[in-house]
Amino acid sequence: MGRVSEFNEFRTRMNERILGADNKAIKRFFGVDTLTYEPGALDEKTKEMMGLVASMVLRCDDCISYHIQQCRNLGVSDAEFQDLFSVALVVGGSIVIPHLRRGVAFLDELNAQNS
Amino acid sequence: MGRVSEFNEFRTRMNERILGADNKAIKRFFGVDTLTYEPGALDEKTKEMMGLVASMVLRCDDCISYHIQQCRNLGVSDAEFQDLFSVALVVGGSIVIPHLRRGVAFLDELNAQNS
Amino acid sequence: MGRVSEFNEFRTRMNERILGADNKAIKRFFGVDTLTYEPGALDEKTKEMMGLVASMVLRCDDCISYHIQQCRNLGVSDAEFQDLFSVALVVGGSIVIPHLRRGVAFLDELNAQNS
Amino acid sequence: MGRVSEFNEFRTRMNERILGADNKAIKRFFGVDTLTYEPGALDEKTKEMMGLVASMVLRCDDCISYHIQQCRNLGVSDAEFQDLFSVALVVGGSIVIPHLRRGVAFLDELNAQNS
Amino acid sequence: MGRVSEFNEFRTRMNERILGADNKAIKRFFGVDTLTYEPGALDEKTKEMMGLVASMVLRCDDCISYHIQQCRNLGVSDAEFQDLFSVALVVGGSIVIPHLRRGVAFLDELNAQNS
Amino acid sequence: MGRVSEFNEFRTRMNERILGADNKAIKRFFGVDTLTYEPGALDEKTKEMMGLVASMVLRCDDCISYHIQQCRNLGVSDAEFQDLFSVALVVGGSIVIPHLRRGVAFLDELNAQNS
Repeated sequence: MGRVSEFNEFRTRMNERILGADNKAIKRFFGVDTLTYEPGALDEKTKEMMGLVASMVLRCDDCISYHIQQCRNLGVSDAEFQDLFSVALVVGGSIVIPHLRRGVAFLDELNAQNS
Repeated sequence: MGRVSEFNEFRTRMNERILGADNKAIKRFFGVDTLTYEPGALDEKTKEMMGLVASMVLRCDDCISYHIQQCRNLGVSDAEFQDLFSVALVVGGSIVIPHLRRGVAFLDELNAQNS
Repeated sequence: MGRVSEFNEFRTRMNERILGADNKAIKRFFGVDTLTYEPGALDEKTKEMMGLVASMVLRCDDCISYHIQQCRNLGVSDAEFQDLFSVALVVGGSIVIPHLRRGVAFLDELNAQNS
Repeated sequence: MGRVSEFNEFRTRMNERILGADNKAIKRFFGVDTLTYEPGALDEKTKEMMGLVASMVLRCDDCISYHIQQCRNLGVSDAEFQDLFSVALVVGGSIVIPHLRRGVAFLDELNAQNS
Repeated sequence: MGRVSEFNEFRTRMNERILGADNKAIKRFFGVDTLTYEPGALDEKTKEMMGLVASMVLRCDDCISYHIQQCRNLGVSDAEFQDLFSVALVVGGSIVIPHLRRGVAFLDELNAQNS
Repeated sequence: MGRVSEFNEFRTRMNERILGADNKAIKRFFGVDTLTYEPGALDEKTKEMMGLVASMVLRCDDCISYHIQQCRNLGVSDAEFQDLFSVALVVGGSIVIPHLRRGVAFLDELNAQNS
């Protein structure tokens, strides 16, 4: 199983495990999280790109992988990804670089899978 | 002098002071910072909105004020600001709320000035 | 108006302003935030103490002021506050100290008001 | 060797290696760290729960694993863990979720070992 | 009273207040903090410069002011300050800039006082 | 392939991949990053030590590995490393410890390779 499938399998399994514990605040938080990325005044693509930039400057590899996948499914082009990465890099500094490297490697795996 | 002018006056004065010290790496960093927000594959408005989300989750009041001003000048609507704030809030958590309060207060001052 | 009243006045006013903008995700987030501190398996006092420790290691002065106020209203003693501060300080490091200083000053103002 | 034993073995071995280098400030820091979680005005369980919340909002997987183990040994119940997780999630935002997933997986392994 | 004296007066007064509460872990932490900057394999100047860089990337204005003062007393030159600032800026990103502005303004006040 | 070679191989390969995408802002950022550590008012060793401290308090394992390697090549002694680690630990708190453990393990591998 490649890195992409492993990531998605673990993510799905543990989300179910967490929601299954039936804590009201946690369940509602997950609900708000989903609601936030639904199209509104801003479209889904813009919101997912924002989620990706936020994940990069906060340096969370799993969040980066997730939003890269979402952005790609919503049609973010390679050049748009690069522009987005540049904003995250300049705001967050060189400390973002290792996460950028892993993010780009994840994006390359996604692209390889679909070609 | 209101909060908006004070912020801009201090920002301009200190940037000049910093660039005047003539350190090559610092000057080039400021150059890259400017370059990053120029329109490319993504337009200026999208980039500034990303800069704002990044500033909110990293919780930097001055960066938030700056990007709110830029976003407003580039035509970000009230409803778009709210959508953007919701992404920053959900990614960054309740710790973002005090910065959201100050950001909204700054936006209100900007709007009051121009009405 | 002292620092305590100013803080509470601004907090209340801006929360109303933010909720008044009527963004569904933001409103629900505020709802989850309130729900989280309601007594459950853990009592309110323990939850507020956790909120305070989290605010200290994330170094947010307003969040610290807010949770200090809540903790005090829920009967957290001076010695308990000190123990809590020690955990935040050791986990978060010396970078927490300036926030500890402002937190203690806020607590002293609260105590002065009520004596 | 499962994830739990690997984690504990590496932790113990490297702590000995670090303390063996005999740097006075580092050794004293480790001493203060131990002292902080000893029962005082707050009991050990409350302090370890605080350590866990702090580790979650600062997003350190190893610190989360360590404090989950401590909390479990001190009798934190499943429902208490869920309440604690909800506070960390709401304060720290969705960026905490991947760490929550790994923390819950670690807790499940701990529980599997002891059943 | 200028910003420099205000900063130092509040710092001294609150440190005394905190240590006066007589919490063993907090007192020992403050002891380790002092010990850490004493000359050892690295001299005091190098350690204070490291403390300053760390404070800048963690974006704590008071810690930045404190270490700027220490560095200046230990003979860090203007060009050395600029080099140090460039490292903090590049590692930490543009989010550091507002703290750099306030740090440089603080350094200028220190220099004005002593001229 | 050991951890050291794997780290360096992935780092080199992905940096080439990122720079190959030919985004002007990203390329210039990498240029500024290199420039920053060149000797100036401060020598390379001091700058790399600062980069290491900054990476430790920001808790980025890859950045820590990279700067440990650079510091070692520039002649940082074991005792100097320990002093540096103590500053990072005290500023950043116990949350730094897991990164310190992995950093020391990486340094030990580097030393084993060259003996």
